Amino acid sequence: MLELTLPDYAEETIIRFIRDFVGDKNAVIGLSGGLDSSTVAFLCVKALGKDKVLGVHMPDSITPKEDKEDAKLVAEKLGIEFRTIEIGEIVEKMNEKIKLKNEMSTANLKARIRMAILYGIANDENRLVTGTSNKSEILIGYFTKYGDGASDFAPIGDLYKTQVRMLAEKLGVPSRIISKAPTAGLLPGQSDEKEIGIKYEILDKILYGMELGFNENKIAEILDIDIKMVRRVFEMHERSRHKRVMLYIPKIGIRSVNTDWRE
Amino acid sequence: MLELTLPDYAEETIIRFIRDFVGDKNAVIGLSGGLDSSTVAFLCVKALGKDKVLGVHMPDSITPKEDKEDAKLVAEKLGIEFRTIEIGEIVEKMNEKIKLKNEMSTANLKARIRMAILYGIANDENRLVTGTSNKSEILIGYFTKYGDGASDFAPIGDLYKTQVRMLAEKLGVPSRIISKAPTAGLLPGQSDEKEIGIKYEILDKILYGMELGFNENKIAEILDIDIKMVRRVFEMHERSRHKRVMLYIPKIGIRSVNTDWRE
Repeated sequence: MLELTLPDYAEETIIRFIRDFVGDKNAVIGLSGGLDSSTVAFLCVKALGKDKVLGVHMPDSITPKEDKEDAKLVAEKLGIEFRTIEIGEIVEKMNEKIKLKNEMSTANLKARIRMAILYGIANDENRLVTGTSNKSEILIGYFTKYGDGASDFAPIGDLYKTQVRMLAEKLGVPSRIISKAPTAGLLPGQSDEKEIGIKYEILDKILYGMELGFNENKIAEILDIDIKMVRRVFEMHERSRHKRVMLYIPKIGIRSVNTDWRE
Repeated sequence: MLELTLPDYAEETIIRFIRDFVGDKNAVIGLSGGLDSSTVAFLCVKALGKDKVLGVHMPDSITPKEDKEDAKLVAEKLGIEFRTIEIGEIVEKMNEKIKLKNEMSTANLKARIRMAILYGIANDENRLVTGTSNKSEILIGYFTKYGDGASDFAPIGDLYKTQVRMLAEKLGVPSRIISKAPTAGLLPGQSDEKEIGIKYEILDKILYGMELGFNENKIAEILDIDIKMVRRVFEMHERSRHKRVMLYIPKIGIRSVNTDWRE
């Protein structure tokens, strides 16, 4: 019940979308060495060809050696151009000036620096910034606003994390990347599932139930899990709404602006 | 014809919006010394009181001395906390790594660095980032995507630039700030009206005509201006669409996901 499968048409739909969207421009992707960005890179190469795709790995001092290797592995396997830009000194330089106190603020700052680097390259080389957000993290707001959440288009944005895994297998993403524990990579030893407090297999089923319009009780009942876990997910969804909408603007409109001339 | 006035209710509507939106958090605003950010600061203080508003000035080597003075002047006049964070070294450090070739890419990078600084402070101090975009620049895309265009809410986002001037006068923003030539401040000697190629008085009327649903010919006729100027504005509007929408995501949905259990 609430089992997620990967629709047959998913791969083709995404590839067609990327091709249409990018048009005669090129693409740039931040390659972390993780599942999402690797899968997106595979999709982009299928859609655009290897010459139009640039992978950029942006490690800092806490980036595990295996992530650096895996990012490079993906680029090599696909035959795409690959650059490494260390962000450690940039983060330090910025924090000299801003003097952030909380570890979490610096963590989010890193995601925004990575975004700014990708956009700098994109602006400079007529590329589009390819987002790597998936549906699970978008729906619970597990991303940095205007950081990793910011891109020109997000090819796997309508696939749950568990569906991304299925697609990655189909595409031939190296299995050690698929089986790696998901992490935002912003804090030492950070793990999505530890931070969210729920495994993706369960999280995705809860979100899927929500998407189908079931209430919290019904989902807990169907999945035979603690209602508190379901509530937690609904709350994360509700509280992250501001990350999924366009800018909030008070509506002034043109209601009482002078329109005499129309008469 | 197509004269823009400032609706009476505009000020009150915006102030109520800011108060509701910020709630028991605080606000941070990037104060450039220009019209938009000064006006937004005045509105925030009216809505929240001076103790809840922080102004941050982020100059680099090309920032004119008078802008630094004017940003400070606004903060002093309002009695709000004021910080200055120089971004020159940050830009240099980033460009050491990215090695951007085009002046325009670096210009946009600066806007993104300023955004990242404001969000760093906001995350660290439980503040919301107050946007300073106005309706004229939003409608033609004259802002940096995920740079100055990125914030938690944009109080004057539904006011044309010429309306912002009217509101600024009403609020008592210093007149030398109101009469200053508008600039994004990203390039030496940059001027909005030079770059856009049209004065705000005309631009706003064209946009207003567009908003009222008139076609290009009709607007040119009403305003008695060259049709080419009107076309240019419509084109800028069309080409900047991607800056005004939420992330593009290919729709996979849940159409053919297994839902047998529902039967």
